[in-house]
Amino acid sequence: MPTATPNRHAFADALKRGLYEAIFRRRDIREFISDPIPDAVLARVLIAAHHAASVGFTQPWDFIVVRSVEQRRRVKEIFEAEHAKNAAQFTGERREKYLKLKLEGILEAPLNLIVTCKPDRFGPAVLGKTSIRDVEIYSACLAVENMWLTARAEGLGMGWVSIMRNDALAEIFGIPADVIPIAYLCIGYVREFPDRPILASADWAQRLPPKSLLHFDSWNDATDRTSSAAESLLKKIDDHSIWLSIFPEDSPTKPPSRE
Amino acid sequence: MPTATPNRHAFADALKRGLYEAIFRRRDIREFISDPIPDAVLARVLIAAHHAASVGFTQPWDFIVVRSVEQRRRVKEIFEAEHAKNAAQFTGERREKYLKLKLEGILEAPLNLIVTCKPDRFGPAVLGKTSIRDVEIYSACLAVENMWLTARAEGLGMGWVSIMRNDALAEIFGIPADVIPIAYLCIGYVREFPDRPILASADWAQRLPPKSLLHFDSWNDATDRTSSAAESLLKKIDDHSIWLSIFPEDSPTKPPSRE
Repeated sequence: MPTATPNRHAFADALKRGLYEAIFRRRDIREFISDPIPDAVLARVLIAAHHAASVGFTQPWDFIVVRSVEQRRRVKEIFEAEHAKNAAQFTGERREKYLKLKLEGILEAPLNLIVTCKPDRFGPAVLGKTSIRDVEIYSACLAVENMWLTARAEGLGMGWVSIMRNDALAEIFGIPADVIPIAYLCIGYVREFPDRPILASADWAQRLPPKSLLHFDSWNDATDRTSSAAESLLKKIDDHSIWLSIFPEDSPTKPPSRE
Repeated sequence: MPTATPNRHAFADALKRGLYEAIFRRRDIREFISDPIPDAVLARVLIAAHHAASVGFTQPWDFIVVRSVEQRRRVKEIFEAEHAKNAAQFTGERREKYLKLKLEGILEAPLNLIVTCKPDRFGPAVLGKTSIRDVEIYSACLAVENMWLTARAEGLGMGWVSIMRNDALAEIFGIPADVIPIAYLCIGYVREFPDRPILASADWAQRLPPKSLLHFDSWNDATDRTSSAAESLLKKIDDHSIWLSIFPEDSPTKPPSRE
């Protein structure tokens, strides 16, 4: 039995809940209402982004706040061309389904945001960078998740428009050659946060069972998966009671809405 | 003035606080105590990771739970060789400082975790993937940030060992050629969560002023930065009162500990 000691840094259940709520209720949003985002709210989201982890504390991110409708129209044109390319990758029913999906809110959202990565901010030598090339890019992605979660808690929807061309973004926004655009984001208030991910409701893809993604001590773990340690963890993964102290209104047969 | 309507999806301040606490108190941890992690806690962290955003809902991540000491010894050897390479990038005082830092807890932590990315999980055509090559890798990074934040809320420290070689990880853990190791993580309980990032305390790097990372409508925004919209946001970034409803014990002159 774990003693109280190692857990003394754990948050109270009510605080844990705020974090898990944000994680389970976050959605990739493409429909926005035009109400403006108060500066205080946007400031909190941006400061949260800046507090993501970064390799060697390089803080390689920058944020371009895009309000200009003219700039956004140019981005939308790039999206349209890329969208046609993306559609061409699918055939038949899958293609019809694809074409029905709304995949961006570039012009409707009150705000667009670009997160970039400047790998050599503090020079070429980076603590934590040896053989893995893209470590700073990974850090910039962590900042995006912080934004996504805080946006959700603030009642803001966010969507990542990855159907995009980085060279076009660089041209439109004058981004220097040593800076890599990572994420083009639309952000704004929404009428609804859907209960389920939009691509799950549209029957494009379903959430994989978390158990299917776990490996033990090696990728091919035919033996290790049946060890008692592995079996015990796999059992907990499906055990709704692990959520009860954090989501007390949920009964063991009604887990928190976390598809 | 924004009406109450757009904010109706916002979390109550107490719930927001849980998320912001996790973001501001998260640290890159390299010193662990050996107390085991209860399976219920580990299950919550892994499920949270699996609920990150992913391009086209591809959920490209897998998680290898590493308990084997033998496997970890092999990883540690790779780290040592890479660590020497990383040290060689620095000279003089900077190098001395580098060599004093503890940069991993591979053997001390009760658990190591590997997050991988399988870009073609659902085949080569991915909704949301056109000209940007690494979109699935970006998604896998979002999962890492969810783990880092939930680990913190659960009282667990986590550290990302990026001083590593992916080909060595692939060999040690039998990771297939079509799967990319993204993050090698150490995770466990800690004696302390430092108030400041370790690399800030060690005077390796300091937190950049968030204002210096903001751009308005274009990268070179000499004009746009002085627009009234930009000035208003920049003012809020430094205004501690934007945190008061969420961290009510903090006075305007004492912001939440968020270095």
